[in-house]
Amino acid sequence: AFASAPQQSKPLVLGCGAVSVDYLATVASFPNPDDKIRSLALKVEGGGNAGNALTGAARLGLSPRIISKASNDALGKSILKELQDDGVDTSYMTVADGGNSPFTYIIVDNQTKTRTCIHTPGYPPMKPEELTKENLFAALHGVEMVYFDVRLHETALLVAEEASQRKIPILVDAEKKREGLDDLLNFASYVVCSAKFPQAWTGASSTPVALVHMLLRLPNLKFVIVTRGEKGCLMLERSMTDASETEETDVEDLLESLEQKVDLSSSMAKCVASKSNLRISADGVGSMSGRLIMGTAEDIPSEELIDTTGAGDAFIGAVLYDISCGKQYASICHVLVFT
Amino acid sequence: AFASAPQQSKPLVLGCGAVSVDYLATVASFPNPDDKIRSLALKVEGGGNAGNALTGAARLGLSPRIISKASNDALGKSILKELQDDGVDTSYMTVADGGNSPFTYIIVDNQTKTRTCIHTPGYPPMKPEELTKENLFAALHGVEMVYFDVRLHETALLVAEEASQRKIPILVDAEKKREGLDDLLNFASYVVCSAKFPQAWTGASSTPVALVHMLLRLPNLKFVIVTRGEKGCLMLERSMTDASETEETDVEDLLESLEQKVDLSSSMAKCVASKSNLRISADGVGSMSGRLIMGTAEDIPSEELIDTTGAGDAFIGAVLYDISCGKQYASICHVLVFT
Repeated sequence: AFASAPQQSKPLVLGCGAVSVDYLATVASFPNPDDKIRSLALKVEGGGNAGNALTGAARLGLSPRIISKASNDALGKSILKELQDDGVDTSYMTVADGGNSPFTYIIVDNQTKTRTCIHTPGYPPMKPEELTKENLFAALHGVEMVYFDVRLHETALLVAEEASQRKIPILVDAEKKREGLDDLLNFASYVVCSAKFPQAWTGASSTPVALVHMLLRLPNLKFVIVTRGEKGCLMLERSMTDASETEETDVEDLLESLEQKVDLSSSMAKCVASKSNLRISADGVGSMSGRLIMGTAEDIPSEELIDTTGAGDAFIGAVLYDISCGKQYASICHVLVFT
Repeated sequence: AFASAPQQSKPLVLGCGAVSVDYLATVASFPNPDDKIRSLALKVEGGGNAGNALTGAARLGLSPRIISKASNDALGKSILKELQDDGVDTSYMTVADGGNSPFTYIIVDNQTKTRTCIHTPGYPPMKPEELTKENLFAALHGVEMVYFDVRLHETALLVAEEASQRKIPILVDAEKKREGLDDLLNFASYVVCSAKFPQAWTGASSTPVALVHMLLRLPNLKFVIVTRGEKGCLMLERSMTDASETEETDVEDLLESLEQKVDLSSSMAKCVASKSNLRISADGVGSMSGRLIMGTAEDIPSEELIDTTGAGDAFIGAVLYDISCGKQYASICHVLVFT
C-alpha cells in the first residue's frame, strides 16, 4: 500500500517514542495455567508506535530519525537492525548496556480470533538526561517535522520544547490519555487521535463537538484527525484567515451534510470536504474558522484482511509524509488505505 | 552448587539434543484472552535439555561439545553466545540461515505458582544429513562419553551408531517416551530417567521391579538411575562379574532394607548402598547381578528454593562429570544437591 519513494532529497522527520519487538505466537487454543503447549507458528516483527510510524514514513520516501531506547541484548540488536534496514536513522537511540529491550509477546488464537498481549517494558527506563543537548540539537538539525507517540514523555517534552523554539511543526498521536500527553498537546500543530479520544479528553457530547473543542483549547493546533475504524476518519482543520463574519454552521449539521454527499453503497473509499473557511460552531463550546473533511474507509472483504496490527501507525506515517511534502490536505485520503 | 573445575586436561563429552531460549515473564495474574497486560519482570535464559546439561558439565570441569540446530536470528545468536561463554564448544552446531530458533515463553504467575509454557520449535527442523560424516567424526574425536536427551532423534541415532562402533559409552536421558527413544536405549550404557518412566516403559508393578526389568531388557546397560524428586533417587547397577550362584534377594525387600538404614529424620542428604554383586530378583521379571543404591534428597526449606528449572538437566551434567572422571559410583551422591 506504500507508494514508491521519490528519488530527490528526502524530507527529514524526527520521531520520539516507543520501539519494541513483537513475537506473534499462533496457538491451537489459548492455554490454561500450567499448560505446556507448542505454538503452531511464530512471527517476529519490529513494533512500538514510533518504530512502526517511522518505518511507514521511510517506506513512503521520508528520511526519519528516531529517539528511543533499547538494550544491547539480542532483541535490541534486532530492533536497531530492522529500523536501519528500513531506512530509519537510529544514531540518536540510547542503547543500554544490560537490562532488556521493550518486548511484546502476543498469543494469537485464530479460532476465537483473540490476541492476548504481554508487554515487557524496556529496562532500565529512559531518563531524559540520557538525551544530551548535543544529540538533541543534531537530531533536530534540518528536520521538517517532529512526531510523538507520547511514550518516554519526559524526553519527548525536552524535544518538543526545543522543536517549538525552532518553529518545527509537531504531530502528536493521541491514542489515549497518558502521562505527559497534555504537555505535548500544548505544543502540537497536528493531532491524530483514536475514535474515543476526542470525547474522552474533552468530555464533549459527540466526536464532532469534541473536535471543535480541541481546536479551541489548543491554539497552536492546525488540524485534528480522528480515525474511526470502518467508518473512516474525520479531519477538522483551522483556517489561516478568520471567518468570523460569515454565518455559523453547526458542526454536527455539517457532518450530516457531508455524510449525505458520500455514496455509502460504494465499497471504494471516498473523501468529501466542506467549503473552506466556514464559521463552525459547537453547542456550548464555541466556534472556530475552518473546514471539516470526511473520509470513508474502503470496504475490504474479511478474507483479504491479513493483519491490522500497526494500521494506525502506518496512517501516522502517511500523515507525516503528506505534511512534509506540503500536501497536508491529502492526508485524509490515506485513511482510505490504512483504516 | 557446582564444584570448581580441575585445571588439568578436561575430559571431552559430546551431547546431541535440544537447545532453546527461555523467556520467563512474571505477571501479576494469568491473562484472559484478548487482555493487554504488562509483565512485572523478564528473565532471559538459555535452555533446552542438552544445552542445560552440557552447561552444567562445563561448569563442573568437563569440555563439552554440542550437536544441535539453531537459526541465525537474534535468539540463535544468544543461544550460541551463552553456550560458548560457559565453555561449550558450538562448532558442530547447524546454524540455519532464516527460520527461527527454538524458543519457550513461560508465563510465571507467582500468586498461583503456575508456570505456563508456550514452546516454539526451531524451524526448519534438523535433518540428519545436515550433520556431515566429517563433522560427526570430528565431533566424536577424543570424546569419552556421548549423551542424548532424545531430541533430534534421527541425527542422534547416527551419532549413537558411530559412538557405539568406537566403543564410546552412551548416556541417555529418558524423561518420557519419545520418538526414537527405544533405538537410542539399545545403545545406552547409562540411563537417567524420570520418576514415572521405568514403570511407563516396562509396565512393571513398581519402580524397583521396573529397574530390574530395564537392565534385563537392555543388555548394554551398566546402570539406570531414576530421580524421584523430594524422595531422592535410586540407582540399579549391573555387576561386571556374575553372581548367579549366590542366593537371590528380592529387589523390593532390598530397597526396604536400604530405607531402614537411612536416618530419614535428618534434613541432610544421605546415600546408602546394598552389598556389591548380589543376585537381585524381581517377581515375574527375572534376576540380575548387581547392587542397589539409594540417595535421599536434602530437605531444602521452600524459602531457599529459588527455581527448580533445569534441576534435572544439572543432575545429568553431574552424572556426565562423575562417569567421565572415572568415579561413576559417586554419581548418586550428586542427587543430594540437584533434586
